[in-house]
Amino acid sequence: MSEPLRLGIAGLGTVGAGVVKIVQAHGDMLAARSGRPLAITAVSARSRAKNRGVDLSAYAWEDDPVALARRDDVDVLVELMGGSDGLAKAATEAALSAGKDVVTANKAMLALHGQALAELAETNGAALRFEAAVAGGIPCVKALTEGLAGNRVTRVMGVMNGTCNYILTRMESAGLPYDDVFEEARALGYLEADPTLDVGGIDAGHKLALLSAIAFGSQVDFDGVQLQGIERVSIDDIRRARDMGYRIKLLGVAQSGPDGVQQSMRPTLVPADSPLGQLEGATNMVVLEGDAVGQIVLRGAGAGEGPTASAVMGDVIDIARGVSIPAFGQPADTLATPRRANEAAPCAHYVRLLLRDEPGALAHVATRLGAAGISIDRMRQYDHPGADAPVLIVTHPCPPADLTDALAELATSSVVADEPVALQIQDA
Amino acid sequence: MSEPLRLGIAGLGTVGAGVVKIVQAHGDMLAARSGRPLAITAVSARSRAKNRGVDLSAYAWEDDPVALARRDDVDVLVELMGGSDGLAKAATEAALSAGKDVVTANKAMLALHGQALAELAETNGAALRFEAAVAGGIPCVKALTEGLAGNRVTRVMGVMNGTCNYILTRMESAGLPYDDVFEEARALGYLEADPTLDVGGIDAGHKLALLSAIAFGSQVDFDGVQLQGIERVSIDDIRRARDMGYRIKLLGVAQSGPDGVQQSMRPTLVPADSPLGQLEGATNMVVLEGDAVGQIVLRGAGAGEGPTASAVMGDVIDIARGVSIPAFGQPADTLATPRRANEAAPCAHYVRLLLRDEPGALAHVATRLGAAGISIDRMRQYDHPGADAPVLIVTHPCPPADLTDALAELATSSVVADEPVALQIQDA
Repeated sequence: MSEPLRLGIAGLGTVGAGVVKIVQAHGDMLAARSGRPLAITAVSARSRAKNRGVDLSAYAWEDDPVALARRDDVDVLVELMGGSDGLAKAATEAALSAGKDVVTANKAMLALHGQALAELAETNGAALRFEAAVAGGIPCVKALTEGLAGNRVTRVMGVMNGTCNYILTRMESAGLPYDDVFEEARALGYLEADPTLDVGGIDAGHKLALLSAIAFGSQVDFDGVQLQGIERVSIDDIRRARDMGYRIKLLGVAQSGPDGVQQSMRPTLVPADSPLGQLEGATNMVVLEGDAVGQIVLRGAGAGEGPTASAVMGDVIDIARGVSIPAFGQPADTLATPRRANEAAPCAHYVRLLLRDEPGALAHVATRLGAAGISIDRMRQYDHPGADAPVLIVTHPCPPADLTDALAELATSSVVADEPVALQIQDA
Repeated sequence: MSEPLRLGIAGLGTVGAGVVKIVQAHGDMLAARSGRPLAITAVSARSRAKNRGVDLSAYAWEDDPVALARRDDVDVLVELMGGSDGLAKAATEAALSAGKDVVTANKAMLALHGQALAELAETNGAALRFEAAVAGGIPCVKALTEGLAGNRVTRVMGVMNGTCNYILTRMESAGLPYDDVFEEARALGYLEADPTLDVGGIDAGHKLALLSAIAFGSQVDFDGVQLQGIERVSIDDIRRARDMGYRIKLLGVAQSGPDGVQQSMRPTLVPADSPLGQLEGATNMVVLEGDAVGQIVLRGAGAGEGPTASAVMGDVIDIARGVSIPAFGQPADTLATPRRANEAAPCAHYVRLLLRDEPGALAHVATRLGAAGISIDRMRQYDHPGADAPVLIVTHPCPPADLTDALAELATSSVVADEPVALQIQDA
C-alpha cells in the first residue's frame, strides 16, 4: 500500500471535529477504499484549549492556518473555518500555491473567489474540491460534475438552506407567523450569527452559484443571483398556496436560455405533490435536469456534523485515489464569462390581491391583466368578513417583468386595497 | 488537448444508439469536460442493415464484438449487448485482458461474474465501470462508491425495476388486479422478453447485489439475495396497506448485521409519506444510509435511452479524465467472501388473515401470536359481507422467522379460513 495521504485540518468546529472522528473511527475502511492510509498530521483552530470531544494529541498544532497549509507534512488542506476572505482564503491560497490539494466546505469563499482559486489550483497542479459546500451530505457536486457530465444541463434547482425550509414548513404545520417561527429557529440554534445569511437567501444563493457554474460551464457569478429572502412570506400565502395545490419553498433555480444564464433564489411555489413540494423540515433537495438523463432528484441532510464531514471525506478519498478533475468540471480558463439573461424565462405566477368589495372590481383586474397579455389559469375569491375581498390568481406562464408591470399599475387602482403579492411557480 | 479517447461500442439497441447520439451532438462540451475529445471509432451489433436512427458511416463495423474489443483503435469497450454470458462476457474479457477499460450496462453479467471481471480488470490495469447497470440515469453507483466513501454504510434500499413499480402503482390508481395490469405493461412494451426478469425481481436483484457489494466491501453475491416477485401482490393488499398508511413496493434491502449481510428483493410495505412511498410509475429510487451522512435519497429514470446513455457517458468521461477506482470501490482481492446473515433482521410486518366469523376467533389469533412473542401494534377488522372476516395486523418488529412459524401454525387452525398473507414493513 502506498504512503499515507497527510491531512491538515484548519477549523475544528462541528464539521472539523466530525472529520477527525471519521478518520479515527474508520482507518482500515478508509485505507481499503482510498488505496492508501489517511493520516491527520496537523490541525489548527482559534482556541487550542477548547474541548471538542475528540483527542487531538497525536496531531501537530498550528495557531496559524496559513502555517498549517505550508507544513511539509501536510499534503491536503481541509479548510473548515468559513468566511469568504481572511484566514480561510489566505490558507487556501497558501496551500494551492504550494501545489497542495484543498478540500473545503466554504461556500462563501468559493461563491466570491471560486474562479481565482480554481485558476490558482490548476496553475499549480492542485485539486480544489468543495462537495461539502453545497447541500451538506448530498453528493450533488459530484453528481453534476461527474455523473451527469454527458448531459447538456437544462436546469438546476435546489432547496439548499435547511433553516429556511424548517421555518416555512413549521409556519404551515403550526399555523404560526414568520416572526414567531424565526424566534423558535433562533432559540434552537438553527440560525447563523447573522441570520440574513439564512433567511435572506445569501447562503443558499452561494450554493446555487456554485452548481450553476458547473452546470453551464461559466465562471461563478454570485452577483448574478437574484436574491429574495423568506422574511416577507406570510402564513396567509402559505395557506392559500396550499389550497391551490402548491407549497412555498426558498427555491434556487438556475437555467440557461438563449441570451444567458438566469439564477434566482427566492420564495417560489412548487406543486405540493412533487418531490420539492413534499420536502419537510431541515432536509435539503437538489434537482438536476439534463437533456439525456431527464430529472434527477437528490435528497438528504444539508448540514450538521456527520453529513458535512461525509462530504469532506468523499473529496479527501477522491484525492487519495488520485482523482483529478477541475474544480468546476472543466479547466478554469475555459469557463465562459458570465452572461446573465436579460429576460427572465416565462413562468406561471401566484398572485394575491385584496380587492375592494365593489361592483366590477374583479372585472377590472381581469381586464388589466388581459391587456398586459397575462392569461389567467385559475382564480379564486375567498370569503371575507371585512370590506375587502382576498383574490388568488394562478397565471399561465408569462414573462415575470410583464406581470410586475401589470401589478404595479393595478396597485394604483382604486379597486385594489393593498400591495399585490406575486410569487413565481416552478414546475417541479 | 490530449489525444482522443477512442470508444468501441458493442450493442446498438436503444442505449447504444443513445450513446452515439450524445457523442455526436455534444463533441465540444464532452471534450471540454473530459480534457480530451471522445471519438467513436468502431461499433458492433447483430444486424448491420438495421436502421437505428443514427449515422454510423464514420465508424468501422465489426460483426464480432470480441474482435471489436481487440481492435488497436479502441481504448474503451462500451458493452451494451446484455446477457450474463456469451458474447457480452467474451468481449468484456477480451478488452480487460488487453488492458482496455470497459463501461457496461450489463447488470446480469456483473451480478454473476462481477468478482472475476473485477479481478481481471485490476490484473490488467484496466477500469471496469457500470453506473448504467443500476437504476439507469441515477448516479447511485458513484454516490455510493465515491461520494459516501467516508461512511460505514448501514443499509441500502431501492426501487430499481420501473416496470414493477409501474404495475404496483397502476394497480392502485386504476383499481385493477395484477393480471390485467401485467397485460397492459406487456402491451406497452415495458416487460423484458422473459417477464420473470422483471416481475420475479431478478433484474432488480442483480442491481441490489451490485450495490450491496460496494456498500459492504464484499464480493457480489446475487445468490444470496432472497427473491420474491410481485406476481402474488393482490389489489386487496395494496388497498388495505394504504388504509394503514403504507404502500407496497418491490423493495430491495441490503443491510449488514453482526453475522453477515442480508439482501432481499421482495414486495414490502413502506410508509406512504416517505420518499419511497411517494414514488409513482416507472421512476426508480435508491436510498443510501451511512453512519455519518444519515439518509441520502436518489430519484430518477431507471431505464430508457437517454437516462441509461447518460450513465454510460458519465463513466466514459471519468475514464477520459483519468479517474481510476476499483470496480467495487476497493481492490477486488480485498473484497470479503460473502457472509450471509443467518437470521433476518427483525422488522414490523403486515399480516392479512381471513377469519371465520365465530366467537373467539380474533382472541385465538392474538393469543397464538402473543405466545410466539409477536406483539401487535395495530389490528383492524373489516366489514364482511360473507361469512369470513378480513383482519389486518401490523406487528411490532419481530424476527421474520418467528412470524412465519406462528402463521404456519395459525393456518392449520379452524378459525383461519385462508392462507395468511404476510409482508415485511421497512422504515423508510
